[in-house]
Amino acid sequence: MAEATPKQLYVGVDLGGTKILAGVFTSALKLVATAKSSTKADRGPKVVIERIARVIRDAVDEADLDLKQIKAVGIGAPGSINSEEGRVIFSPNMSGWEDINLRRDLEKEIDVPVFVENDCNVCTLGVHFAELSGKPRHVVGIFLGTGIGSGLILNGTLFSGFNRTAGEIGHMVLEVGGPKCGCGNKGCFEALASRTAIFRRIENLVKDGQKTVLTDMLGDNLDDLRSGDLRKAIKKGDKLVEKVIEDAAEYTGIAVGNIINLINPEYIVLGGGVIDALEDEMMSIIVETAKDYAMPGTFKGVEIVASKLGDHAGITGAAVLAREHSKT
Amino acid sequence: MAEATPKQLYVGVDLGGTKILAGVFTSALKLVATAKSSTKADRGPKVVIERIARVIRDAVDEADLDLKQIKAVGIGAPGSINSEEGRVIFSPNMSGWEDINLRRDLEKEIDVPVFVENDCNVCTLGVHFAELSGKPRHVVGIFLGTGIGSGLILNGTLFSGFNRTAGEIGHMVLEVGGPKCGCGNKGCFEALASRTAIFRRIENLVKDGQKTVLTDMLGDNLDDLRSGDLRKAIKKGDKLVEKVIEDAAEYTGIAVGNIINLINPEYIVLGGGVIDALEDEMMSIIVETAKDYAMPGTFKGVEIVASKLGDHAGITGAAVLAREHSKT
Repeated sequence: MAEATPKQLYVGVDLGGTKILAGVFTSALKLVATAKSSTKADRGPKVVIERIARVIRDAVDEADLDLKQIKAVGIGAPGSINSEEGRVIFSPNMSGWEDINLRRDLEKEIDVPVFVENDCNVCTLGVHFAELSGKPRHVVGIFLGTGIGSGLILNGTLFSGFNRTAGEIGHMVLEVGGPKCGCGNKGCFEALASRTAIFRRIENLVKDGQKTVLTDMLGDNLDDLRSGDLRKAIKKGDKLVEKVIEDAAEYTGIAVGNIINLINPEYIVLGGGVIDALEDEMMSIIVETAKDYAMPGTFKGVEIVASKLGDHAGITGAAVLAREHSKT
Repeated sequence: MAEATPKQLYVGVDLGGTKILAGVFTSALKLVATAKSSTKADRGPKVVIERIARVIRDAVDEADLDLKQIKAVGIGAPGSINSEEGRVIFSPNMSGWEDINLRRDLEKEIDVPVFVENDCNVCTLGVHFAELSGKPRHVVGIFLGTGIGSGLILNGTLFSGFNRTAGEIGHMVLEVGGPKCGCGNKGCFEALASRTAIFRRIENLVKDGQKTVLTDMLGDNLDDLRSGDLRKAIKKGDKLVEKVIEDAAEYTGIAVGNIINLINPEYIVLGGGVIDALEDEMMSIIVETAKDYAMPGTFKGVEIVASKLGDHAGITGAAVLAREHSKT
């Protein structure tokens, strides 16, 4: 770490419902060290904030550094965020997170400036700066995991809308009357192409007596199914899994086409656990479908790519957030 | 016109595939006079540009003014527009309009500065300044007519995206596998709720032997059907028309919900011939449906309203365009 000037280091934190990941980054976004912990969200915000502080300290210690050498900490948190105040307005998947001033409470713990932003926005920032050199003016990041979310960079900066909730692409209806979504509506993108939707569809097909190598791999109970198992099953020639993944990719392509027609970004970057595991199986279908659905003239020069940041999208974007905000 | 200082007057032009409408406006957006002509789009861009010049002169003459007193002309034109250069990149519904420098060619004719923008963007500008005092930072205007289009005002200015085509909301897929759209895809918003879609559905139901007072009003051949006839039929208790309009309003509400989830604007303003004719029948369904589909937290303080500008949305917005650009 001799080359890094003190105070040109940043910590990026990815706060999730089940785990907290922190990374120490140089100002050139080189990852120096990481640390990880479970979230224990059920213990409430106070405990979670103490755990975030601990994971930050662990990552800094792992990098043989001291907190005093960290210029700023960025955090990507799920839910609706007031980023100016660093406040979590609400976070549906973490109990008690309503109007919590995460910035203020965490700054008390670590005495380093803290900046907070929505997790999908942070991932999109990470992709924009670490993968696209911050160049494209309009970028939409779409993340397929347990749920589906997105972040919008318009005119070079994050766009969060009137209630700071923009980017809820998972609840864009693609198929009126389609499968039921966790939100209570039907036919949402998330109910058609998230990991949850994919797994549910496979389980239902198995219950209907259809055959898949997944049951040979994991037993009749598919509770432990992971995205990576789907890739393995397809590689083994499993037609059922192949069809389900093709359908999810097609819905994703339609969603991407909708975005190209409506927002017309220069880059659409796909990420999240489903894409990380199934990029080879899904991306060409997504791109071809989006092309089919985009209007003439809208698609010229538009790039649809998979992020290579994987698990590190959140911490990288959070480090970008810290770096950008502490510039001023 | 004695109160208006010379050169504080603007002409707004609404260039459509079938007619050209021009209006003379004061800087306070008071409409002084209008003139109208058919477009004769089949005669090609050169003739159409001469006709635009003539309609502008007619409107100015109608206001007892001289072209020399006009500070600037704004034009809303269909298709993809390079507004910096005043160039029509392409306009699918007007023959020969590919890479036409409308600004330059029209300035030659009238010797007044000309500014050009996409027609739905211009209508949204008109709504933003003439109806909402230019205050809300994020406004989406959705216009339901023969087709469906939209304009996006984000952070107080028009947003047109990478290829200047943003706002193609008519081709947002809402119902995968739904009715065929003019664009070749299926289930687009335009194929579910435009005037074309509504009329086609009524015609098909009549062909299937269902009863409507429209055939008493217009005869078995419904070729001359207009949006206003639908309102009259509903007022006469026509259940078939009522159901078709309710369905179109519900699809529109779902589209509005998608926009609230994705872009989270402060105002969504609906306009166009279908809304102008059927506001009373459609708006409450649109608002209730959008509320059902918007995620918790996204809807707070968001307004969904019908524009009162009617036919004048285009010329008013074009006058706003002229005024805003000639300020600098």
